[in-house]
Amino acid sequence: MKLLKKDLETRQETVYDAIVVGGGMGGLSAAIYLARYGLKCLVIEKGKGRSFWMQDLRNYVGLDPDTPGRDIIQHATTQAIEWGADFLRGFVEEVTDEGETFAVKVKVGKSDETGFTLRSHYVIAASGVIDVLPEVENMQNVFDYAGYTLHVCMICDGFDMWDQKAVLLAKTEGQINAAFVLNWFTPYISVLTHGLNVSDEMKQKLAEYGYPLYEQPIAEFLGHDHKLSGVKLVDGTIVEATTGLVNMGSIYHNQYLKGIEGLEYDGQNLVTNGMCQTSHARIFALGDLKQGLNQVSVAVADGTLAATQIWRNIRRASPPRKWEERRSHLLYNKN
Amino acid sequence: MKLLKKDLETRQETVYDAIVVGGGMGGLSAAIYLARYGLKCLVIEKGKGRSFWMQDLRNYVGLDPDTPGRDIIQHATTQAIEWGADFLRGFVEEVTDEGETFAVKVKVGKSDETGFTLRSHYVIAASGVIDVLPEVENMQNVFDYAGYTLHVCMICDGFDMWDQKAVLLAKTEGQINAAFVLNWFTPYISVLTHGLNVSDEMKQKLAEYGYPLYEQPIAEFLGHDHKLSGVKLVDGTIVEATTGLVNMGSIYHNQYLKGIEGLEYDGQNLVTNGMCQTSHARIFALGDLKQGLNQVSVAVADGTLAATQIWRNIRRASPPRKWEERRSHLLYNKN
Repeated sequence: MKLLKKDLETRQETVYDAIVVGGGMGGLSAAIYLARYGLKCLVIEKGKGRSFWMQDLRNYVGLDPDTPGRDIIQHATTQAIEWGADFLRGFVEEVTDEGETFAVKVKVGKSDETGFTLRSHYVIAASGVIDVLPEVENMQNVFDYAGYTLHVCMICDGFDMWDQKAVLLAKTEGQINAAFVLNWFTPYISVLTHGLNVSDEMKQKLAEYGYPLYEQPIAEFLGHDHKLSGVKLVDGTIVEATTGLVNMGSIYHNQYLKGIEGLEYDGQNLVTNGMCQTSHARIFALGDLKQGLNQVSVAVADGTLAATQIWRNIRRASPPRKWEERRSHLLYNKN
Repeated sequence: MKLLKKDLETRQETVYDAIVVGGGMGGLSAAIYLARYGLKCLVIEKGKGRSFWMQDLRNYVGLDPDTPGRDIIQHATTQAIEWGADFLRGFVEEVTDEGETFAVKVKVGKSDETGFTLRSHYVIAASGVIDVLPEVENMQNVFDYAGYTLHVCMICDGFDMWDQKAVLLAKTEGQINAAFVLNWFTPYISVLTHGLNVSDEMKQKLAEYGYPLYEQPIAEFLGHDHKLSGVKLVDGTIVEATTGLVNMGSIYHNQYLKGIEGLEYDGQNLVTNGMCQTSHARIFALGDLKQGLNQVSVAVADGTLAATQIWRNIRRASPPRKWEERRSHLLYNKN
């Protein structure tokens, strides 16, 4: 059920089989599977994740390519709740390993100073990343284009940039190297560093490729109706472009795991096995938080894998049922 | 485009970047990605695969749980073609490694005695498995229930069998062991071996669990409107059941790969790396053909991974484009 703050009292004694941190594509897939395995699960979603901002999902089997991310999330949230999952709007502050269980501290609502603690045997980290966007004076100007013609994922949207004049927004030299992959889709690339001064070596490389470089900070994005026509820099320069790729890094939503000892990371990505299990046997990680491609289809499969492994673990540790036996545990979701 | 037999002439000189054998969930996901990477791809689909028979898809994020498999396949096929993939109805007989390319021999239509040969740099094996169903005199009687209340996948449909009287159909002793997993969902299990005589050891184990065993062959499934009410055996016995699980093994559609040397298998499943690449660098395998869970979400992610790795390989071997350069190769899909 959808839990409101007032319902949390009723879950004080509950030990969930799994708490899923993050109600994006991966977390909801996990919740749908967990619920259909008859396991007690809770999804905690803070709102406004990466999929929520995505204006269309081009490459996911079964859905129209103009389906907005938030529609799918809403659909899957309803689905997970209907199959028996609990769902809570809240922000997970900290996960503490208590040995047999995890204590998951969550803030519900802006005025929640103290927070609530919920418990589970397993935690699924599905809270993803959010893309760094260029900071300009009027951020609404960025949101007018981001997710429409100003993309954040080349794999998802490179096709839609085909042979167009494109800006590549980077804030480190490493990020500028995306130009030499983006040129698969379009060679008309202007590189904007939003204030970063670039080494002579990189300048020379860009010059060799014929990609103009602009080191001035961005003043504003130009265009109308979410369609980019150019970018205005603070010195008044206008760079023509009908599309763009923001490649300024990601913020990882995994702070709540910082107190867990021995979690193995590869850079900021959690290292997982083939079933999305981290180096902590009772913590799983999905989608953008783990190594590999940041794609919706991958996150959805990850949810399947993590939920299935958790089910296997719990099932194998449970006494088998003979004819006529009922297991009270299993009845939870069926009432 | 959708290729008819008469169009095949126009593809005689084409070397596809990838030929995808099988237009199920995994193959279509691969095709959508390949097309959106601007790669030339062809999907060859023989028709009536596992998803086609699936009457509802319970656990795939974004779709209603009563969506039939064939609807999604049709949707994704249209999508792949719209993004630029070729699609052909045909049966792949043989894949031959020619060094730089593969020769893919396909029969198009029942009257095609000689077959056509198409060529590609990569092959994606996405032709899946089909479940063995019990053979009875009137097979329509089986199809009346299979995919409705007579299930073939416990992970997908165990939830829908919850605490119901269920038949488990097996044809080896190993397959009977599914009873001791199925009892997670329901303990009211009758085991039907459709003629197989079972060892005393297994008989004793089933007796301990209180699961009745019926070794007589099945005469017919009883019920109406796709809703099972029982199973009638050839000796006239009627076993009451409102649901069932067929666990009689799978037929792997991978015969066309038999001539490829050195492909590594685990049982009948192809061994692949994290990007679905087999032990042959230019052959990828997806979904049910490879190791791991036979789930739609997994197959869809597999298509993403295989297509992306193929794109990376091709991209890294291609000269980078400077400003103003066009690459004729890439224009293929844009015309």
